[in-house]
Amino acid sequence: MSLLAVGSVAFDDLETPAGRRENLLGGSVTYFTLSASHFVPTQMVAVVGEDFGPEQRGVFANRPIDLSGLVQKPGRSFRWKGAYGRDLNEARTLDTQLNVFADFHPEIPESFRQSPYLFLGNIEPSLQLDVVHQMANRPKWVALDTMNYWIRGSREALGEVLKKVDILLVNEMEVRELTLEQNLMKAFRRVLDFGPKVLVIKRGEYGAVLMTPGSVFAAPAYPLEDIVDPTGAGDTFAGGFLGKLAQLGRMDLPALKHAVLMGTVMASFTVEQFGTGRLETVQKKDLDERSKAFSDMIRLDDL
Amino acid sequence: MSLLAVGSVAFDDLETPAGRRENLLGGSVTYFTLSASHFVPTQMVAVVGEDFGPEQRGVFANRPIDLSGLVQKPGRSFRWKGAYGRDLNEARTLDTQLNVFADFHPEIPESFRQSPYLFLGNIEPSLQLDVVHQMANRPKWVALDTMNYWIRGSREALGEVLKKVDILLVNEMEVRELTLEQNLMKAFRRVLDFGPKVLVIKRGEYGAVLMTPGSVFAAPAYPLEDIVDPTGAGDTFAGGFLGKLAQLGRMDLPALKHAVLMGTVMASFTVEQFGTGRLETVQKKDLDERSKAFSDMIRLDDL
Repeated sequence: MSLLAVGSVAFDDLETPAGRRENLLGGSVTYFTLSASHFVPTQMVAVVGEDFGPEQRGVFANRPIDLSGLVQKPGRSFRWKGAYGRDLNEARTLDTQLNVFADFHPEIPESFRQSPYLFLGNIEPSLQLDVVHQMANRPKWVALDTMNYWIRGSREALGEVLKKVDILLVNEMEVRELTLEQNLMKAFRRVLDFGPKVLVIKRGEYGAVLMTPGSVFAAPAYPLEDIVDPTGAGDTFAGGFLGKLAQLGRMDLPALKHAVLMGTVMASFTVEQFGTGRLETVQKKDLDERSKAFSDMIRLDDL
Repeated sequence: MSLLAVGSVAFDDLETPAGRRENLLGGSVTYFTLSASHFVPTQMVAVVGEDFGPEQRGVFANRPIDLSGLVQKPGRSFRWKGAYGRDLNEARTLDTQLNVFADFHPEIPESFRQSPYLFLGNIEPSLQLDVVHQMANRPKWVALDTMNYWIRGSREALGEVLKKVDILLVNEMEVRELTLEQNLMKAFRRVLDFGPKVLVIKRGEYGAVLMTPGSVFAAPAYPLEDIVDPTGAGDTFAGGFLGKLAQLGRMDLPALKHAVLMGTVMASFTVEQFGTGRLETVQKKDLDERSKAFSDMIRLDDL
């Protein structure tokens, strides 16, 4: 019942109102697997450069994260430099160096091709489609993240891969750009035409919205007094959400709602420290405590 | 157990992506009382001009809304002209004519001075304070709405009236400006220093957040496919929230959460048509159906 994730591993230089950090291990699949592996064994497919050493590898140790799909190439890893203003909602990209990621062509190891659950992180849509084709069987579900860059520049290829996707996870701006609909209820109807039957809209400090045919569930973000660094919150959410869903082995509404709760809680840990700092140290006890607090918080008690 | 509300009655010219309307009855206390009166008898204190006639008065008829505090003065009523863009989150004010509202000095009728519940709508803070002083007794609770204009220009007077306030209802930008804190958890601690023990943050399409010492509850907005006109949604929310709270006669957490639910549901009706169009026709059955749907929506079912 393992969950296979394809995406980027990167080094980030970050600037937030809480300070600056350089050379932090980041990338979508890093946050995703660290989060999802709290729920199910996770398999990673990504590319790194020669700057990825034992220190970085150690971040994934002692976790059920299989790195046999992590390919090392000559050169440097993907590098991203970003800064956040006071409102923390959106990063300003200061520099992007694709490096080895520019030629990333994910090759799924033989031992991963039977995975029942597949997460296609934010990479070029034609590569996402190619990953689907490499699977031995149609996974029980396929989930996908994307971004405005692909929605604008690779709409056709994105349309092709979306036909194979069950769960679309994007932010609010992205779903509006994909569907050309401002209203999220209408946007969801367009998403259904593309293929996915479940839409999860990540809204940062406003939480997340889950849409399925016939139902809508919205959960706020977990309230925190100190948000140090929002980097990776969306990928951590995706990891918690899909990890929980894979663990439950169901896709009914109660399962989807609980998965949103777990995504929310996992993301709340990530933002408490720079990079993966807090995510690396989360224990089951922390997770249980916070998910209990969160479900109490959103519960409408009897009068 | 009546609820006394002081605020503005206005005529609005509105422009939204759904169309334009002129000369619609509006103003904070209009939306507030139409909403709150679904839960408790409501008393209105406001000023109107000679343009307020039987047609406008009729809007409040057949409802437990006592208009004996509605004073008519020579001249025209408060007039507001606003436009909304595609995202509907914020109105652009095109024109404001205070007219009779410029000299508004609320006089609370003798018969209203015993009201156990008081809502101070968004007017000059010194007038809000004067209203509190006119009450025969300290109400069981006092709730207050305000805006950036007063937060910036009348901070001292606002500070004075906040000492008498139990429940502060504002939007996100306003609470940040009042407390000079970006983080809402920290902002709430500053609000406690001002006086109120309960903070409700209205977030438009993102719903509402309720904060009390020791707990946070956040509810999304009720999802709708067609939002025609957001004017009055915040005041309608306040009316549903405070009306329900007055009806329950309690201020514990389950009561406050249910009050948020009712505020949310009432606001969702308001935005379905221009002005008070939909709010005027809401029946108990509509309210019951939608609040049931909403509580199902936000419920975290057992797995």
